[in-house]
Amino acid sequence: MKWDHIIRGGEIVTPTSQYKANIYVKNGKIVTITDSELEGEAKEITDATGLQVLPGLIDTHVHSRDGGATYKEDFFHSTQAAAAGGITTIFEMPNTNPTINNVENFHKQVENLHSKAHVNFGVWGICLGDINNEDLQSLSEAGVIGFKYFWGYAVNKHTFQLVYNYSNEMEDVFPPCDDGEVFAMFEEVAKTGQTFAIHAENSDVINRLTKSFEKSGKTDYETFLASRPNVVEELTIQTAISMAKQTGAKLHILHVSTAEGVHLIRQAQKEGIPITAETCPHYLFLTNEDYETIGPSMKVYPLVKFRKDQDSIWEGIADGTISFVCSDHAPHTEEEKNGDLWTIPAGMCGVETIAPLMLNAVSEKRITLQQFVSLLAENPAKQFGVFPQKGAIQVGSDADLTIVDMKKQAVIKKEQLHSKSKVTAYDGYKVTGMPVVTIVNGVTVMKNGEVTGGILGKLVIPTK
Amino acid sequence: MKWDHIIRGGEIVTPTSQYKANIYVKNGKIVTITDSELEGEAKEITDATGLQVLPGLIDTHVHSRDGGATYKEDFFHSTQAAAAGGITTIFEMPNTNPTINNVENFHKQVENLHSKAHVNFGVWGICLGDINNEDLQSLSEAGVIGFKYFWGYAVNKHTFQLVYNYSNEMEDVFPPCDDGEVFAMFEEVAKTGQTFAIHAENSDVINRLTKSFEKSGKTDYETFLASRPNVVEELTIQTAISMAKQTGAKLHILHVSTAEGVHLIRQAQKEGIPITAETCPHYLFLTNEDYETIGPSMKVYPLVKFRKDQDSIWEGIADGTISFVCSDHAPHTEEEKNGDLWTIPAGMCGVETIAPLMLNAVSEKRITLQQFVSLLAENPAKQFGVFPQKGAIQVGSDADLTIVDMKKQAVIKKEQLHSKSKVTAYDGYKVTGMPVVTIVNGVTVMKNGEVTGGILGKLVIPTK
Amino acid sequence: MKWDHIIRGGEIVTPTSQYKANIYVKNGKIVTITDSELEGEAKEITDATGLQVLPGLIDTHVHSRDGGATYKEDFFHSTQAAAAGGITTIFEMPNTNPTINNVENFHKQVENLHSKAHVNFGVWGICLGDINNEDLQSLSEAGVIGFKYFWGYAVNKHTFQLVYNYSNEMEDVFPPCDDGEVFAMFEEVAKTGQTFAIHAENSDVINRLTKSFEKSGKTDYETFLASRPNVVEELTIQTAISMAKQTGAKLHILHVSTAEGVHLIRQAQKEGIPITAETCPHYLFLTNEDYETIGPSMKVYPLVKFRKDQDSIWEGIADGTISFVCSDHAPHTEEEKNGDLWTIPAGMCGVETIAPLMLNAVSEKRITLQQFVSLLAENPAKQFGVFPQKGAIQVGSDADLTIVDMKKQAVIKKEQLHSKSKVTAYDGYKVTGMPVVTIVNGVTVMKNGEVTGGILGKLVIPTK
Amino acid sequence: MKWDHIIRGGEIVTPTSQYKANIYVKNGKIVTITDSELEGEAKEITDATGLQVLPGLIDTHVHSRDGGATYKEDFFHSTQAAAAGGITTIFEMPNTNPTINNVENFHKQVENLHSKAHVNFGVWGICLGDINNEDLQSLSEAGVIGFKYFWGYAVNKHTFQLVYNYSNEMEDVFPPCDDGEVFAMFEEVAKTGQTFAIHAENSDVINRLTKSFEKSGKTDYETFLASRPNVVEELTIQTAISMAKQTGAKLHILHVSTAEGVHLIRQAQKEGIPITAETCPHYLFLTNEDYETIGPSMKVYPLVKFRKDQDSIWEGIADGTISFVCSDHAPHTEEEKNGDLWTIPAGMCGVETIAPLMLNAVSEKRITLQQFVSLLAENPAKQFGVFPQKGAIQVGSDADLTIVDMKKQAVIKKEQLHSKSKVTAYDGYKVTGMPVVTIVNGVTVMKNGEVTGGILGKLVIPTK
Ligand SMILES: [Zn+2]
Ligand SMILES: [Zn+2]
Ligand SMILES: [Zn+2]
Ligand SMILES: [Zn+2]
Ligand SMILES: [Zn+2]
Ligand SMILES: [Zn+2]
Ligand SMILES: [Zn+2]
Ligand SMILES: [Zn+2]
Repeated sequence: MKWDHIIRGGEIVTPTSQYKANIYVKNGKIVTITDSELEGEAKEITDATGLQVLPGLIDTHVHSRDGGATYKEDFFHSTQAAAAGGITTIFEMPNTNPTINNVENFHKQVENLHSKAHVNFGVWGICLGDINNEDLQSLSEAGVIGFKYFWGYAVNKHTFQLVYNYSNEMEDVFPPCDDGEVFAMFEEVAKTGQTFAIHAENSDVINRLTKSFEKSGKTDYETFLASRPNVVEELTIQTAISMAKQTGAKLHILHVSTAEGVHLIRQAQKEGIPITAETCPHYLFLTNEDYETIGPSMKVYPLVKFRKDQDSIWEGIADGTISFVCSDHAPHTEEEKNGDLWTIPAGMCGVETIAPLMLNAVSEKRITLQQFVSLLAENPAKQFGVFPQKGAIQVGSDADLTIVDMKKQAVIKKEQLHSKSKVTAYDGYKVTGMPVVTIVNGVTVMKNGEVTGGILGKLVIPTK
Repeated sequence: MKWDHIIRGGEIVTPTSQYKANIYVKNGKIVTITDSELEGEAKEITDATGLQVLPGLIDTHVHSRDGGATYKEDFFHSTQAAAAGGITTIFEMPNTNPTINNVENFHKQVENLHSKAHVNFGVWGICLGDINNEDLQSLSEAGVIGFKYFWGYAVNKHTFQLVYNYSNEMEDVFPPCDDGEVFAMFEEVAKTGQTFAIHAENSDVINRLTKSFEKSGKTDYETFLASRPNVVEELTIQTAISMAKQTGAKLHILHVSTAEGVHLIRQAQKEGIPITAETCPHYLFLTNEDYETIGPSMKVYPLVKFRKDQDSIWEGIADGTISFVCSDHAPHTEEEKNGDLWTIPAGMCGVETIAPLMLNAVSEKRITLQQFVSLLAENPAKQFGVFPQKGAIQVGSDADLTIVDMKKQAVIKKEQLHSKSKVTAYDGYKVTGMPVVTIVNGVTVMKNGEVTGGILGKLVIPTK
Repeated sequence: MKWDHIIRGGEIVTPTSQYKANIYVKNGKIVTITDSELEGEAKEITDATGLQVLPGLIDTHVHSRDGGATYKEDFFHSTQAAAAGGITTIFEMPNTNPTINNVENFHKQVENLHSKAHVNFGVWGICLGDINNEDLQSLSEAGVIGFKYFWGYAVNKHTFQLVYNYSNEMEDVFPPCDDGEVFAMFEEVAKTGQTFAIHAENSDVINRLTKSFEKSGKTDYETFLASRPNVVEELTIQTAISMAKQTGAKLHILHVSTAEGVHLIRQAQKEGIPITAETCPHYLFLTNEDYETIGPSMKVYPLVKFRKDQDSIWEGIADGTISFVCSDHAPHTEEEKNGDLWTIPAGMCGVETIAPLMLNAVSEKRITLQQFVSLLAENPAKQFGVFPQKGAIQVGSDADLTIVDMKKQAVIKKEQLHSKSKVTAYDGYKVTGMPVVTIVNGVTVMKNGEVTGGILGKLVIPTK
Repeated sequence: MKWDHIIRGGEIVTPTSQYKANIYVKNGKIVTITDSELEGEAKEITDATGLQVLPGLIDTHVHSRDGGATYKEDFFHSTQAAAAGGITTIFEMPNTNPTINNVENFHKQVENLHSKAHVNFGVWGICLGDINNEDLQSLSEAGVIGFKYFWGYAVNKHTFQLVYNYSNEMEDVFPPCDDGEVFAMFEEVAKTGQTFAIHAENSDVINRLTKSFEKSGKTDYETFLASRPNVVEELTIQTAISMAKQTGAKLHILHVSTAEGVHLIRQAQKEGIPITAETCPHYLFLTNEDYETIGPSMKVYPLVKFRKDQDSIWEGIADGTISFVCSDHAPHTEEEKNGDLWTIPAGMCGVETIAPLMLNAVSEKRITLQQFVSLLAENPAKQFGVFPQKGAIQVGSDADLTIVDMKKQAVIKKEQLHSKSKVTAYDGYKVTGMPVVTIVNGVTVMKNGEVTGGILGKLVIPTK
């Protein structure tokens, strides 16, 4: 058997061009790109005539809840959802149980995820401040994809789990790091040369305003927004930028949600400070005005903001201030999501819907398909040091491919999602443009919505 | 007796012009400005021929240590020093004992200071966070000149005194306010419409770096500077700017010491955010390079920084980013100032030397005498709502006048200072240009360096 | 007789404050300002109780057509109009006949104007390129108030009169200066240290577009505007800024009419390039939308533009980018102004209406009365080196005063204007706030609209 | 014969990655890229082991003097020089005789060049103002690569040749276009959607200053520079930017030589105005300080400026403000270049040295080899609408390839250049990194410095 897989007749799309060619795969790698038909048999042949063949899509921001709250989601389900949604690689967030605070837990997690992975995966390390500042170098060497800091969160003294509603009367809790401790964290991550990603909301101001607004008894979205105003994102981002400038840490702002955030990041980039940013579909396709029709399922942190913020975020996409888009996949059960806006958890499914939503944006001419490839494949691969192994269609690259049909129309349906919990803000959303084949390491894992592959995902480690 | 005081033959200097005229004073007010000699006798006649007559100078930032550490300084001495140095009004900082946290303590302090005041005075109120957030409106109505927040300081639970070397093991201490509590403070001061002045250094980062650098055993100024890097000023100023933008508080940055600070303030002003700034002579005339010759007496907080910072601060003066100059008069005893750089207290005398130093800058053409009047009289008077009662030579204004001789040469001598403790970085400093007469409420209180007046200072209250 | 004039009971207004005081005048100067009543009789006493007393207003941009087209206007009438409108000093533009291109013509003009002057006056010199580049230094020494360049205009070879509709087939004409000749002019004016004022419209582009749009046969204002688009102002201003940066000439942009102009000037000022700007009431109170109701009388060059330009110009006033307002008084006869929009002359009366219009803006809270004093008195006086002789109420200053009644309501009526030709865009315009007394060199020349003074205006020469 | 050419064992370099692969060529196109050896014989096999294989380099700015001054250079020689220097495509400038002002002359020129072309070529059209404004659309349809305007040059009335030392006494000459005529040109080119490239120097100011400095009798480079100061580039660029903003023309600034130019272009790009820029090796590797050793051969227009300009131009390269580098190849004979700095012609050879010089910059780490590919291949191809036909190594792209040896050291020697006239500023310049094979349309035309190919160059037409 000469070839493992031949993808025939499609149009290859890169960030700079589109051209027709056949792709030959062997041992999980792309070995030949040609306008000809080569001799030799293949285990698998995919006819991509009339379709676009893209580098496999990467979702850098996924909470599969595994280990930990596996009643909400687990890695088996989330990677099935990924495959179904055209994603060939996901990076798993480290706020699991155990959390990814040291090398031992990293290795355990890799083993755990490996046994369930329908797609390739990277694993984030967590920064807990002085608790694990000395573990960061070894975590880096072990192969984490980057470091994440949940700014402003307290940590349980025994389990090292994040504490979501900290008050200073709590026992057995490390209070949130003060700015000095955070500064030391920046210094330490800077040494690794890896991405230092932060959730950027000033929790002190949020807690204060929450207390004050909760008293009002109002439960509308506008009041809720007033308790988490745009300035809370601004405060944390600018503090982080100053620290990055001072320490050289390669700062990354997660899920940018405000015009102010985009502005600060753009300015810092112009000054040459090492900073990048991502956003998520909910900030691109929803605003506060949608709450009336969508309701609690669209509660995410940071909150979806206003029209003017959405406009600024699209501008940030257009001029490259924001270099990629990810899902912040964070499922909760239906029961959990029903209830008072102030108390229900934040987060929704995303890994399966991100590609359809962004392809629909291509159909609506908000971005080009070439930009789509930048945003979902090339840029994340470069950011995390796995390009051109990932994110490229090139001889020698991994045979991770996403084939899309830009003419296919579909309706997102909650009940058809592959996640364990299926909360989404997009139930009933119509899209034009769908991933129709997902190929991971040379093997088709999804075809026309059917997840067909097995557990063949591999750990992705940055080459730096 | 028709007139209380005639100032004859001098050249009046305002921010926009200089012209010769005689000034006639009655009941503590300027009643006539004329090129003629009016009829009628006068209690006092000052011949200002060949001299410049300026609006009385205002030092907005003075720590007279009264009540409290009166072994270092007291208001009797500090106001004598002010009169000697050509200052007709000082604003007393509120970190006294009792601290100025409520109306009762404000009234006590006014009474206390009134009995010792050789010059006019205003009194700052203090912001302690939730401890006294509800007292701010009544303090404002009672007549505080503005509000000061010592950002990052803890407070003793019983005395409400600032705690200067906080660690989180301390008992009986309110820890420093978190950002939420500070935000609430901004909201509350905003309602008063008064100046909200902050000491802008991120204490968390300072504490962290101090621990780390102290271990090194090094006691040189450069190492000390590394423990309080420029970024600590940047961090607090930008947080404050964001909160001012959000709340509308009339933010004022005390004693700007860095290029970064000047830059942030300039940008914020351009965006229309309500923000002003001051600096002090030590940031204008000293740099880290002077430590070798001057030694510990130049330790102040924020620390004196680098040449490039000094250059930026002068640019901030030139383009109006920084609108006035004050002394941050903060005496300690000689004994206290001798010792390890890390542990000796920060601060030095300033109220008596600020005018000579700045007049010398006029002689050196760094600023004009008209700018000097802006920086030391008109601008502070406007900032704190007491213009044109103070800060102007105009019919109806208070007869507070500083007469200067721009040809007079002098040498600053530590032992001749009028403060109780006489620590200064300028012992031996030669100046050209000296205040030679100080007139408060129409009465001469200093002539040729001799403090002659009695206790005639009055409380200054903003008209808003 | 001890005093020439006493102004009693009014409120003096300066750019920084307002206070009640009496003003005593002797020999054309302010000699005493006092809250008292001084002894001695006076030739004239003005009761200003309930009124505001301002420094005499200055209109820096007036075309009285004298000598030359005196059938349109002359200096006798224009200075009566000035007095009637509260203006105590006007600066006469140099495009007269003879033009003010050399010292001889300057002296002739001074003599001519002196014999007709109801108010004080300065005289602009003209720059004609190589024709008179060598006369600029002597003109400066002779006392011109500044230099004006009519950018893009051709000049008659014999009369040195401007040629308003140049085409390159014309004979006996010096074509417009090329950029090299203009550059040499900048170099030469720079040596004088005086203001170099330019009419900033790119005439090449205007001529080209005019030919192309005239063909269309359309005579509406929008088409006319399209033939003189905003970019023509932008082109000339930015060229001028570059030349000012290179040569150090003290550039002044006359009658700014576009948002683009304001933006360029603001940027150049931030970079420290020596540049100032003025605007006129028509750019502040009219837009293209008014043409339908006002018609041809509002044709001025540069044309009145759009709402967004007007907004930007007000912002330029607010932030100081534009430092003063003047009338560009340029009367034509009614007959001349009736006709085809493309061919009728540009210009209208202004010197008599500028103060009422701007006082009405005070009533409407667009500016404060203190800003009004900056814009119409202090700033122009400073710009042209005649402060504090003019533009201030101060002992020693000239007794030029404008007394206003902010409660007085009036209607601007064309037929009541004092100019020879009475074309105005403001016929029927209602205002609140009027000048009620004009005092020139200590003598009342207007009271309640009646022009009472004689020919007492004096030449104003910069002190530099 | 199955393949025309196999390039084996090399490392393919693109702007984003480098990877090993073999390239198979058929009918002048790349048909297969593979890590394998395919079956079938080949006409030509190139062993690129240890070498880098780049997309064929494009020199967008070449004056081959053919037709016209073919005693200086001709297309046979210039394209040999190109092949020798690793260039696979050149764009020929239109100031030839006949000039490329209409479709007829375009076709004649294509025929002329075709018969001598060792490499592929595009042909620029010229803009002469009203002379040929109506020919621009048909020139665009005929296939010019872009439009060039020699701003400020006069044109001979009969031959339409540029007049290099225009004075307004000349007969039979169209004077330089005024700004109105230029504006009309912008409008016309805008309609084509093609690149509008300008030589940006204000000739009026240059002529004026030249007359004034020539009189001085000085012939040093500094005086010469003073006659063509940086501001002349600034003046023309900013005028062009304003016209581009107004008309939508796709403005391109040729041979940027100043810091001011880079700054203006960067600002305009940030504002979204359609503007791009190029620079040349002489602005990157020479400064005024080199004149002493190099002498007249380095006279080019615009002149090589100062160190600070060079620094800014490198920054412009680094941040993408300047998107490509070209040679401005413009040979003159040795005799012509010997003489007075004021009178000798400007220009030197460049097409053969640009790649070695820029590869040496790679060796010196000023740019990466991936950036080199952007600057010399991908970016110019995109700018002129010929990507990915040119500028890419991709299945379906033209088989134009430049193979480089980054370890090869060489010395540039004047006498070894392939141009007819061999004036260069780089005689004796040592480089590390050389093009060693040039492949045009699949055929090797240069190997190890030997030009081996025949006349096989083809016309390149933008696809738009
Ligand atoms: Zn988050
Ligand atoms: Zn998340
Ligand atoms: Zn302080
Ligand atoms: Zn202090
Ligand atoms: Zn004009
Ligand atoms: Zn005018
Ligand atoms: Zn050129
Ligand atoms: Zn050229």
